[in-house]
Amino acid sequence: MNIGIIGLGLIGGSIGLRLRKSNFGDKFIGTDSNQENASYAVRLGIVDEIIPLQDLVMQSSVIVLSIPVDGIKKILPIILNQINTNTVILDTGSTKYDICNQIHSHPKRNRFVATHPIAGIENSGPVSAYSNLFHKKKCIICDSELSAPDAMDVVTKIYSILKMRIIYMTSKEHDLDIAYISHLPHVISFTLASTVLKKFKNKEKIFNNMMGSGLNSTTRLAKSQPETWLPIFISNKKNLIQAIDFYIDDLNKFRNHLINKEFHDINQYMKKANDIKNKKYV
Amino acid sequence: MNIGIIGLGLIGGSIGLRLRKSNFGDKFIGTDSNQENASYAVRLGIVDEIIPLQDLVMQSSVIVLSIPVDGIKKILPIILNQINTNTVILDTGSTKYDICNQIHSHPKRNRFVATHPIAGIENSGPVSAYSNLFHKKKCIICDSELSAPDAMDVVTKIYSILKMRIIYMTSKEHDLDIAYISHLPHVISFTLASTVLKKFKNKEKIFNNMMGSGLNSTTRLAKSQPETWLPIFISNKKNLIQAIDFYIDDLNKFRNHLINKEFHDINQYMKKANDIKNKKYV
Repeated sequence: MNIGIIGLGLIGGSIGLRLRKSNFGDKFIGTDSNQENASYAVRLGIVDEIIPLQDLVMQSSVIVLSIPVDGIKKILPIILNQINTNTVILDTGSTKYDICNQIHSHPKRNRFVATHPIAGIENSGPVSAYSNLFHKKKCIICDSELSAPDAMDVVTKIYSILKMRIIYMTSKEHDLDIAYISHLPHVISFTLASTVLKKFKNKEKIFNNMMGSGLNSTTRLAKSQPETWLPIFISNKKNLIQAIDFYIDDLNKFRNHLINKEFHDINQYMKKANDIKNKKYV
Repeated sequence: MNIGIIGLGLIGGSIGLRLRKSNFGDKFIGTDSNQENASYAVRLGIVDEIIPLQDLVMQSSVIVLSIPVDGIKKILPIILNQINTNTVILDTGSTKYDICNQIHSHPKRNRFVATHPIAGIENSGPVSAYSNLFHKKKCIICDSELSAPDAMDVVTKIYSILKMRIIYMTSKEHDLDIAYISHLPHVISFTLASTVLKKFKNKEKIFNNMMGSGLNSTTRLAKSQPETWLPIFISNKKNLIQAIDFYIDDLNKFRNHLINKEFHDINQYMKKANDIKNKKYV
């Protein structure tokens, strides 16, 4: 059984490393639009061989589509046209509705499984990939009733090898919820980095002298790749704008309490926010 | 030489642990308005003995004032009235202008050194204290020309024992810059926690299922104590509101680019924010 990985970055690369270690699949073939990433992926043992996309699609029993979401949206219907009826294809994109909607009426829709392994980090590329990236994290599978049972079996087997906990929901629910849980924090973080960098333009030394661990953790996500994140923001635009508006509204509440010296209200606001202590992400 | 520590939480506790290990000072005496923290501090070896504030002030050669900034502002003039002219007193508050301004004309102003060791974490209390908390981090000393040379010698010696790098600036500059570098990230983080917790009220399971490391790091600061942070926000209100307004403006820019489909502008915005990669906080 050949495993084909389209997109040999952090996610595709880490999937390849783990599956190969587990002897799932016989041969690993890959492709990446970035030639440097492609050759790294072979050297790092993510895949056995780099082959053209067209050949990969024809030769793979399982296709992992781990490229930015705009790329997935574009290429998925084309791949579905080409695969035979036994091939299983899954994607790893961070938005799901757009992608599922695009192929909703495709005759081979049931060969596709829409997944979102929640495991991204701010680093990218095959050099950042490691086989334990997914360990004990969550993977959302969306609209699973539209996938064939045998395709679901293969994909759940893969995620169990990756040691992920699988959660099921609709692609619509996924996109709304993930707008708040992942996309909003990214926007918040990009904006914070933008604001402080502008403020300390030409005051680099002062900035370096004063930066503490607080700013470091709140701006970690601002190190993420625009190539990955802009397509996610575009694909989940409507929900993300709702989340940003909700957030700005909340921030204005805080600001107005401060201006109006409503300190008891700020205290309550912070006490409630402290509840995040009780949430564990793994 | 007796060292008196007023406030035996994370900062005061960690200072006590490190100084005692280094045999700086003979006897460590402490006081804390929280009796439980006080008795923990003795058990954890932060101080030798708990004594009433009044006695501590009279018996200490060096006084470390590590309580919330509203407390520092209130108590500092009283302590200055009581100490003899050889005593050295330093504070560790996260705002400096208010505190310095308050005692600007005090006849014993020069016995005081205004400091801000940038080393807070989201955990608090003597149980969170550890002797290496300050290792290689930055400490800002403000308005040092208003402190007596011998007081400066003692305080710089203390921070060199804590292995901190000392930076000098005015209390006014400090408060404006730290509003952006530390206080704004805290507000951002409290608000993000507030927004997502409200959104997922009664949807706890979904929240727990979807939370990833991104939200985890951006909401780390939202775990901080209101008792510490509300007084900081109040003390630095004017600068903080400026920073929040600047931030909201920047976030609205992002939002409007998204609404207006100005995707190239968002790409540039994110690319510039990526520059935060090149900043190291230690």
